[in-house]
Amino acid sequence: MFISFEGTEGVGKTTLIRRIYDDFIAQGKEVVLTREPGGTPMAEQIRSLLLAVNHEEAMCNDTELLLMYAARAQHLAQVILPALEAGKIVLCDRFTDASFAYQCAGRGLSEAKLKLLNDNFVARMPDVTFWLDAPIELGMNRARERGALDRFEQEKVSFFEKVRSGYETLWQRHPERVKRLNATQTPEQVFAQAMRELQAV
Amino acid sequence: MFISFEGTEGVGKTTLIRRIYDDFIAQGKEVVLTREPGGTPMAEQIRSLLLAVNHEEAMCNDTELLLMYAARAQHLAQVILPALEAGKIVLCDRFTDASFAYQCAGRGLSEAKLKLLNDNFVARMPDVTFWLDAPIELGMNRARERGALDRFEQEKVSFFEKVRSGYETLWQRHPERVKRLNATQTPEQVFAQAMRELQAV
Ligand SMILES: Nc1ncnc2c1ncn2[C@@H]1O[C@H](COP(=O)(O)OP(=O)(O)O)[C@@H](O)[C@H]1O
Ligand SMILES: Nc1ncnc2c1ncn2[C@@H]1O[C@H](COP(=O)(O)OP(=O)(O)O)[C@@H](O)[C@H]1O
Ligand SMILES: [Mg+2]
Ligand SMILES: [Mg+2]
Repeated sequence: MFISFEGTEGVGKTTLIRRIYDDFIAQGKEVVLTREPGGTPMAEQIRSLLLAVNHEEAMCNDTELLLMYAARAQHLAQVILPALEAGKIVLCDRFTDASFAYQCAGRGLSEAKLKLLNDNFVARMPDVTFWLDAPIELGMNRARERGALDRFEQEKVSFFEKVRSGYETLWQRHPERVKRLNATQTPEQVFAQAMRELQAV
Repeated sequence: MFISFEGTEGVGKTTLIRRIYDDFIAQGKEVVLTREPGGTPMAEQIRSLLLAVNHEEAMCNDTELLLMYAARAQHLAQVILPALEAGKIVLCDRFTDASFAYQCAGRGLSEAKLKLLNDNFVARMPDVTFWLDAPIELGMNRARERGALDRFEQEKVSFFEKVRSGYETLWQRHPERVKRLNATQTPEQVFAQAMRELQAV
């Protein structure tokens, strides 16, 4: 089983994924907890390029998209696919839906380009995707306490509104896979909702 | 005018491109000399990832290909297209043909994947491409004197034989664009042959 966690900054993805990880481990399951962009030492180097704030040279949209998929190809081949083949549960903090939400809905990159990368470079989609949904301001207020903002976190509220509506589009298109969680709830309530959704799968 | 320089390691690409650059500058032309992967500070960081020798984690073929195109997207947008629009001559040490020769012919990656990246992420092809052709051993002997070998240079002779035949395929497919130079000649002879070819364009 491959589960991904999506949503804008500070909605509680990392908090929820850790809670589920601990729960699965306590149940004696074999679980791999990983994240994107990143998930292998090499893919984490690509992540650093992606998140770095560079005032000298703006990163082009195509460059950003291709770096995301370079990191993803490495992550899939080295971590996700081997873990799934070994029968483990994979919990992944962001995956391909984030490219749709951030690069297409957020930055306006063509969906056709994304589809072509997904069709050719993403061998496996998640079985379940949790979309943690909350108003942008709420997540931003939660995230602000984490310290210096990276290149994505520095975007304006209007950008994140587009990202959020990108996730909504995916939720409407793929109701069997994408489960919306009300992320304005307490962490325990979000966790309980996620576990109910998983039981229904 | 956009001119690219291709060929296996040590055939004399960098030597020829500098010679042509000096000649054009002496003629009072506006010329930009650049290279791939790289050509902008950000794309050079991607180059470092591509060339780094990493004994802990092998780079997947898809990752390599996508990193190449990420660097290329940045290089095109920031350097090549603006220079061409300003009427300058662009001399580029390797370009998209190298992806065909190294990733497809060399590593066996599907041509369909490459075509799809070229069609969607490469807005401009070179007007002329010089393919410096010489036996692999000759180039390797020349290159060996440059010091520590990068991740590509460490490949076996059989890999470079495939790369060379990849370039030969491109030369046969695109005779109007790809010009074969006999790189076993002296640097002055190679330069003279290149200038004759340019006059014929
Ligand atoms: N449901 C919640 N209610 C209140 N605060 C939360 C909730 N979930 C997470 N947080 C807090 O909000 C901040 C951001 O959470 P985090 O899980 O890092 O978000 P994300 O990974 O989605 O960016 C953290 O300080 C976290 O403790
Ligand atoms: N035509 C040539 N004949 C002999 N040596 C050459 C020739 N062209 C280049 N060299 C030498 O071979 C080495 C590799 O050349 P270089 O231009 O760096 O190759 P490339 O850029 O294709 O890897 C350098 O030491 C260079 O001086
Ligand atoms: Mg997080
Ligand atoms: Mg060179």
